[in-house]
Amino acid sequence: MEAGEEKRVPRYLEKLTPVKEAIDIIRKRVKPVEDTVVLPVWEAVGRVLAEDLRSPHDFPPRPRAAYDGYAVRSEDTPGKLKVIGEAPIGKVEIEYRVEPGTAVYVSTGAYLPDGADTVVPEEAVRLEDGYIVIDKKFEAGKNIDPVGFYARRGQVLLPKGYVLTELDVVGLLDIAVTRAKVFREIRVGIIATGTELFEPSSPEEAEKRILRGEVAETTAKLIENMIARYTPWARVVKRVLLPDYIDTIEWYIKRQMNNLDLVIMTGGTGPSEVDPFYKLADRLGAEVLFRGLFVRGGRPTSAALLPNGTLLLALSGHPVSALHGFLRLLYHVLKHMGNVERAGEPPIPAYAALAQPLKSKRPEPIKAKLYWRDGVLVAEPLPRERQLSSVTVSNVEADGILLVDKNEYDAGDLVPVMVYREPIELPKEGKREEAEE
Amino acid sequence: MEAGEEKRVPRYLEKLTPVKEAIDIIRKRVKPVEDTVVLPVWEAVGRVLAEDLRSPHDFPPRPRAAYDGYAVRSEDTPGKLKVIGEAPIGKVEIEYRVEPGTAVYVSTGAYLPDGADTVVPEEAVRLEDGYIVIDKKFEAGKNIDPVGFYARRGQVLLPKGYVLTELDVVGLLDIAVTRAKVFREIRVGIIATGTELFEPSSPEEAEKRILRGEVAETTAKLIENMIARYTPWARVVKRVLLPDYIDTIEWYIKRQMNNLDLVIMTGGTGPSEVDPFYKLADRLGAEVLFRGLFVRGGRPTSAALLPNGTLLLALSGHPVSALHGFLRLLYHVLKHMGNVERAGEPPIPAYAALAQPLKSKRPEPIKAKLYWRDGVLVAEPLPRERQLSSVTVSNVEADGILLVDKNEYDAGDLVPVMVYREPIELPKEGKREEAEE
Repeated sequence: MEAGEEKRVPRYLEKLTPVKEAIDIIRKRVKPVEDTVVLPVWEAVGRVLAEDLRSPHDFPPRPRAAYDGYAVRSEDTPGKLKVIGEAPIGKVEIEYRVEPGTAVYVSTGAYLPDGADTVVPEEAVRLEDGYIVIDKKFEAGKNIDPVGFYARRGQVLLPKGYVLTELDVVGLLDIAVTRAKVFREIRVGIIATGTELFEPSSPEEAEKRILRGEVAETTAKLIENMIARYTPWARVVKRVLLPDYIDTIEWYIKRQMNNLDLVIMTGGTGPSEVDPFYKLADRLGAEVLFRGLFVRGGRPTSAALLPNGTLLLALSGHPVSALHGFLRLLYHVLKHMGNVERAGEPPIPAYAALAQPLKSKRPEPIKAKLYWRDGVLVAEPLPRERQLSSVTVSNVEADGILLVDKNEYDAGDLVPVMVYREPIELPKEGKREEAEE
Repeated sequence: MEAGEEKRVPRYLEKLTPVKEAIDIIRKRVKPVEDTVVLPVWEAVGRVLAEDLRSPHDFPPRPRAAYDGYAVRSEDTPGKLKVIGEAPIGKVEIEYRVEPGTAVYVSTGAYLPDGADTVVPEEAVRLEDGYIVIDKKFEAGKNIDPVGFYARRGQVLLPKGYVLTELDVVGLLDIAVTRAKVFREIRVGIIATGTELFEPSSPEEAEKRILRGEVAETTAKLIENMIARYTPWARVVKRVLLPDYIDTIEWYIKRQMNNLDLVIMTGGTGPSEVDPFYKLADRLGAEVLFRGLFVRGGRPTSAALLPNGTLLLALSGHPVSALHGFLRLLYHVLKHMGNVERAGEPPIPAYAALAQPLKSKRPEPIKAKLYWRDGVLVAEPLPRERQLSSVTVSNVEADGILLVDKNEYDAGDLVPVMVYREPIELPKEGKREEAEE
């Protein structure tokens, strides 16, 4: 290689790092968050448990009715009993005590009045002269949730590293678990770089500017939304659009994003006279962890470690390529930084069966139409020429994005898929009637 | 049947309506929204197209470079050309005209300067004495996106009834489609009913009250969040918690929710001395469409049509049963009311293979642990006693909810699943190395 050539393309994507290796490098070099905070569980949805979540008490703390009916003494059954009152659910003070020969109406979930040791379901009694008549024996403990039936004091309900979901909170509140110690949020900044970019404000202005050759910024916004949706333990505290002036970007990172865990740059990662990512890393005194991913769609994805420990991650400026970077790399990086063992609903919730054979030389995102057939999600990739990162209009034709790997696939092979439009439900073959519901 | 018996349980769930029939009844009796509004596409994510979305122009409106390189005249190739300037993407005024013997540097997506009819990629030229040398012929039109390459004026990009997704907006903005005519939002009110309920404000208070026997309201909040996430063309404009006083509920619906398309009640739908749903419908002058669904978990789900056309839908007060009502019924009702042909990411994005046989007498939600094995999502239902709607703490043990139907299932049978926790990825059998990435 001549000196002249070396100068023309200095260090630009000399060696592409495989995705798995890139994640491993970041796992080794970037420290996960350590600070914790105690939150009400209803404010902790999407946050990561910093310790095993244990029940602080037995629940129920006293026996509860497991059925709508009458709380009685087992030894009074069978028999004819006087109803002296009722204990509906949510009634705080239990005013009645079940003495021999009496009964108290209880609804499911209500605490059992003192003296009672069994519940006779409503439908198992007859009403007679203001009394209830019970025709058979009910053993002590029947139709009762005993103390600690739902949770024992100290029992681990959810382990450390789990992300609290909304349905977890529903379950926890039912047993009076109201607090959780979680890690603090990962603080993220996003810089969209590109002198050609603008943030649209009105449809008229946007149409005019795009037709003139300017480009609407959508990549950084897309990544912000992906983070909000799929990695809610991280929070984008700043998102800004800057021109490709390296001085400005350097100043912004140093002065405006100096207290963040992660700074994401979209765009500005491609080739140019002098490689801007290395240049920026040099100026910031950052150590480049890798420069270029072995993928198609997101190849310029790069990472560097700033002197203060902030991770600088550069994603492609092309929306689908940046999304690919999120799905392959950033999602896993944020899991690592947040100490996540198990997240909530993942961005890749399904595998799809390929409708046709497919070849791929590198891990890449493939836009596809999606449909259900007999419980199988089938993916029909758009033609190759509609897959190019510059043809984002093809997003509109597709229903999801397949994450394919360097591979040769046959029709029917399963590949992970991000679903962004409801797949069409095809009727079952020969069972058209049942397909609807 | 005796008169006395009839009086004791008046009309309560006399006939359960199958889900498909319930949806059909609502489709026939409830009018979808008709009003429309024109929005910037970036404000229309989640909204329903009220007409086919067509490109208002050819895009690109003039030829664009499809490659980084030099815009030249085909008849000058091969040859040695003088570079007279550059036309980067986003540059609004094209200052140069390609005259015979000259070239202009263009980046991908930039409009072609007048005079040029082909683009020679950067890597296909040599630099020599300030000139570029092109060694072979480049035909006219090579490496150029012609006028209308991405979209033709009048071309349907997305059909009526489609819900705009975030990735659609990315694609549309790239081709200067900045406006969409969409239906107005469905206006929804939610009333959580239950004298025993409270909305937690602090963890200390909540813990104390729940231990005393009160119940934290989580059902209505869960349904509000499901609507926000999966039916974004509907908007919850009011959510309120009321006691089980029928006068209060009647007043609230008549006076505070008189301009809504849909009023959802959670709770207050169960049996009691006089069936509260019929009573409320009577008082409001509403026509009961159905009372009780043929499901397990959400059985009291009911619907009535108010005189002003508002749909009154009663869901169970139990969170998972209400969620079941959302997934089976409300989701489809909102699609109908919003004129939705295809939604965005659906709440049921996958089918799971049962790890063990399962019997079900009615359509029901089954809580399950989830894991991936060789591209197959496998579901292991929690034991039957953990499935009861009163045992919401079992939400915490599960990772997803299976929608099973009246059926006998074998191990391996596929059932639809709502995934709320990332399934565990099990290593491929015999291919442990490749399983990770």
